[in-house]
Amino acid sequence: MPVEISARHCHLSQRDLEKLFGAGYELTKLRDLSQPSDFACEETVAIEFGSNKFEKVRVVGPVREQTQVEISLTDGAGSGVEIPLKLSGDLKGSARVIMTGPAGRVELSEGLIIAKRHLHCATEEAKKLKLKTGDIISVKISGERGVVFENVIVRVKNDYKLSVQIDTDEGNSAGINQKTIGELIF
Amino acid sequence: MPVEISARHCHLSQRDLEKLFGAGYELTKLRDLSQPSDFACEETVAIEFGSNKFEKVRVVGPVREQTQVEISLTDGAGSGVEIPLKLSGDLKGSARVIMTGPAGRVELSEGLIIAKRHLHCATEEAKKLKLKTGDIISVKISGERGVVFENVIVRVKNDYKLSVQIDTDEGNSAGINQKTIGELIF
Repeated sequence: MPVEISARHCHLSQRDLEKLFGAGYELTKLRDLSQPSDFACEETVAIEFGSNKFEKVRVVGPVREQTQVEISLTDGAGSGVEIPLKLSGDLKGSARVIMTGPAGRVELSEGLIIAKRHLHCATEEAKKLKLKTGDIISVKISGERGVVFENVIVRVKNDYKLSVQIDTDEGNSAGINQKTIGELIF
Repeated sequence: MPVEISARHCHLSQRDLEKLFGAGYELTKLRDLSQPSDFACEETVAIEFGSNKFEKVRVVGPVREQTQVEISLTDGAGSGVEIPLKLSGDLKGSARVIMTGPAGRVELSEGLIIAKRHLHCATEEAKKLKLKTGDIISVKISGERGVVFENVIVRVKNDYKLSVQIDTDEGNSAGINQKTIGELIF
């Protein structure tokens, strides 16, 4: 099962995109990502939360209903802000974040999360694997820094491509810095 | 079994301590650490490797035979240097590092490592647990970000206090930022 690492990035709503980059602005694709509709954009923004600030945080397209910023616990260290561990899309109770782009600034009372590790799985494949959305699995990554990640949440959708999504802290703890293969443990 | 997280730090030889802080210099204890003879020092140094530089890297005393700098994979990211995963003390083939203190500068051709996770265990306790130096165990950390760390190397010594030693990447991947309790898996 492929395992992929997400570095800090953000998803933007059309409204926030226009505030940050200008009226009528459209995202420019830099490269495709593993999930069919997702793409890394040429655009980056600055983010600020508590006493931490990061420049050049990659925007991931397409635009979404709600703006979301995903960072690692390492990124959050020393900020003085408690950033909750959340599934992507679940922004209730997530942390405040300020974003700055070339055309303006957006202050969000919610939007900043540490992403919970999860498995993307297409509907057909999920049937074969006897998995459904919300199931909890474990994923083993072998090697000198071998790790079993527990509490990996399954998300099933028609067009998802099979992939375990972890962040840079999780990748580093397993000694991997790019795509690898993990073993599914039920 | 207690699990403890080490942030980036260094151990100094008397020779390098004097180069960095001046002739005849002695370390000043800031606080005791979990291992009986170890202590965090008031002294910090700057370290440089490849294109990365960190100020205020904590010195851990007492002085050792050989100077050793321990960082995380996150710290090493973007440096352009491959920093090997090594057991503390095993510096053969470790990476170059430059250290700067108030009195001078030390350039080491070897000394920079990512520390392999390991278990410290006293001789008596090791007998009870049927463990010996060099054994490989797994340690499970429960919680929302539950993880099993495999390939944890056992180190037995008379005065060691039972403790699993992991770095900040590993701590973050398990969602912990201070001491916790792990479960030993044989």
